Amino acid sequence: MQQLESQSLQPKIPQPLKNTVMVIGGAEDKVHGREILHTFFGRAGGVDARIAIIPCASREPSAIGDRYRTIFADMGAKAIELLDIRERSQGEDPRWQEYLEESTGVFMTGGDQLRLCALLADTPLMEKIRMKVREGKITLAGTSAGAAVMGHHMIAGGGSGESPNRSLVDMATGLGILPDVIVDQHFHNRNRMARLLSAIACHPDRLGVGIDEDTCAMFESDGTLQVMGKGTVNIVDPGDMFYTNESQVAASDPLSLYNLRVHILCHGDRYDLRQRTIVHPQSRPTP
Amino acid sequence: MQQLESQSLQPKIPQPLKNTVMVIGGAEDKVHGREILHTFFGRAGGVDARIAIIPCASREPSAIGDRYRTIFADMGAKAIELLDIRERSQGEDPRWQEYLEESTGVFMTGGDQLRLCALLADTPLMEKIRMKVREGKITLAGTSAGAAVMGHHMIAGGGSGESPNRSLVDMATGLGILPDVIVDQHFHNRNRMARLLSAIACHPDRLGVGIDEDTCAMFESDGTLQVMGKGTVNIVDPGDMFYTNESQVAASDPLSLYNLRVHILCHGDRYDLRQRTIVHPQSRPTP
Repeated sequence: MQQLESQSLQPKIPQPLKNTVMVIGGAEDKVHGREILHTFFGRAGGVDARIAIIPCASREPSAIGDRYRTIFADMGAKAIELLDIRERSQGEDPRWQEYLEESTGVFMTGGDQLRLCALLADTPLMEKIRMKVREGKITLAGTSAGAAVMGHHMIAGGGSGESPNRSLVDMATGLGILPDVIVDQHFHNRNRMARLLSAIACHPDRLGVGIDEDTCAMFESDGTLQVMGKGTVNIVDPGDMFYTNESQVAASDPLSLYNLRVHILCHGDRYDLRQRTIVHPQSRPTP
Repeated sequence: MQQLESQSLQPKIPQPLKNTVMVIGGAEDKVHGREILHTFFGRAGGVDARIAIIPCASREPSAIGDRYRTIFADMGAKAIELLDIRERSQGEDPRWQEYLEESTGVFMTGGDQLRLCALLADTPLMEKIRMKVREGKITLAGTSAGAAVMGHHMIAGGGSGESPNRSLVDMATGLGILPDVIVDQHFHNRNRMARLLSAIACHPDRLGVGIDEDTCAMFESDGTLQVMGKGTVNIVDPGDMFYTNESQVAASDPLSLYNLRVHILCHGDRYDLRQRTIVHPQSRPTP
């Protein structure tokens, strides 16, 4: 049996971020405490926030966009704009690039991640967002489909209720904001462990991150992932995996994955993405 | 935060078996190749097999028992008896104990694991089976509910579609044939990873073994677990887990589990239960 080449055993060292990227597992509280959305609002500048909402994963972009507009307006954002892109050519609209120039926060809604990527990938608008994230000038958040697009490899769809197997997951290319991770969302809520395992078997040089609903994985500028919200963030780390049969079996055959490291993390837990270890609870700042 | 005591970090050393115990994830093929059932038949002695079928997990014990009786009769077993126990007092019936004395294989069917334990646990019949397993004189197999009862701690029921949490899983006491493991069955088919994780958070001194349908974890006398069948056997090893919040949160709160080792195993894969490591593929005998 073929072993994994040693090259793929080396975890990729993630590029440091200069600002927070908030990856939300969908169905975040929009009514009561709004903890996650309020945190986004705060990180984006609070009452000085200038927010761009990207609703184009959704087939009802006006409705979903207006819902978030109302929420951030209630919180007191200084400016809010809906980047209601329905054709790729709109990604070149200088008006929206100008607005982005002044923005402090970008929020990508749920919907269909393939639609979001088809409309945005490689447009000048997306390049502007990517540059602003890299420069630390905006706080980026995405929920559900808006979360799924964060990696270079993206889970576009899939099933559940089966042994892990390649045909259980549809992979595509994401927006690559956090290229080293493969994000899955609505994670335990929709029983997606088997499909994330299947994705990781195909891409063992990445880190699997499965995020439950109303839960956020906050990728921080200090190289950690911090968990906020009601559910869990599930880390599937194949860094020590020394064998998978992925390349040797039919697409519907069950997959072997030897020696995964898995962490189930809750609100307040922190994970060091560079060391691929838990930040020990005792070294957390006292709340 | 409280750390796990070092005592619980020490994996229990399983007692060696003298014969195979076959733990089947339910819905094993009964019509076509019947690979798993045929293996049980062979291990129990083939045409010399004297098989006892225990159908009492089921509320229709005659029907399910007769189905297996027909299968093993077709294969050519020398003797087959249905131990159709409907009251605990029948567990003292000397006729069945005499039959067991001569038996070479015992097969426990599916149904409700609580019913199975309520009828069998601590009866003379069950003690006889346990003794014969310990002495290596019978091959024991259990499918579905008959698999769930194998551990000391038993998953009696539970849910899916939620973050791991204590109330997602109902624990009870099993028959303790393989005391060191917590078995779950119909595993990925019914999306049971979250409930197995929840069970392991409560019992981090055990080993989680989640078995898919038409798949068998064969606990062998050499201290290994060998996988046979169509799906996967999923090992959740908390031996290196250094923290869980299990004792500190409400029953419905999400659980943290830091640093699990997880293996997804397929047909032919082998796992060393004493070392808690994969038996390296290159050290497998050539098929």
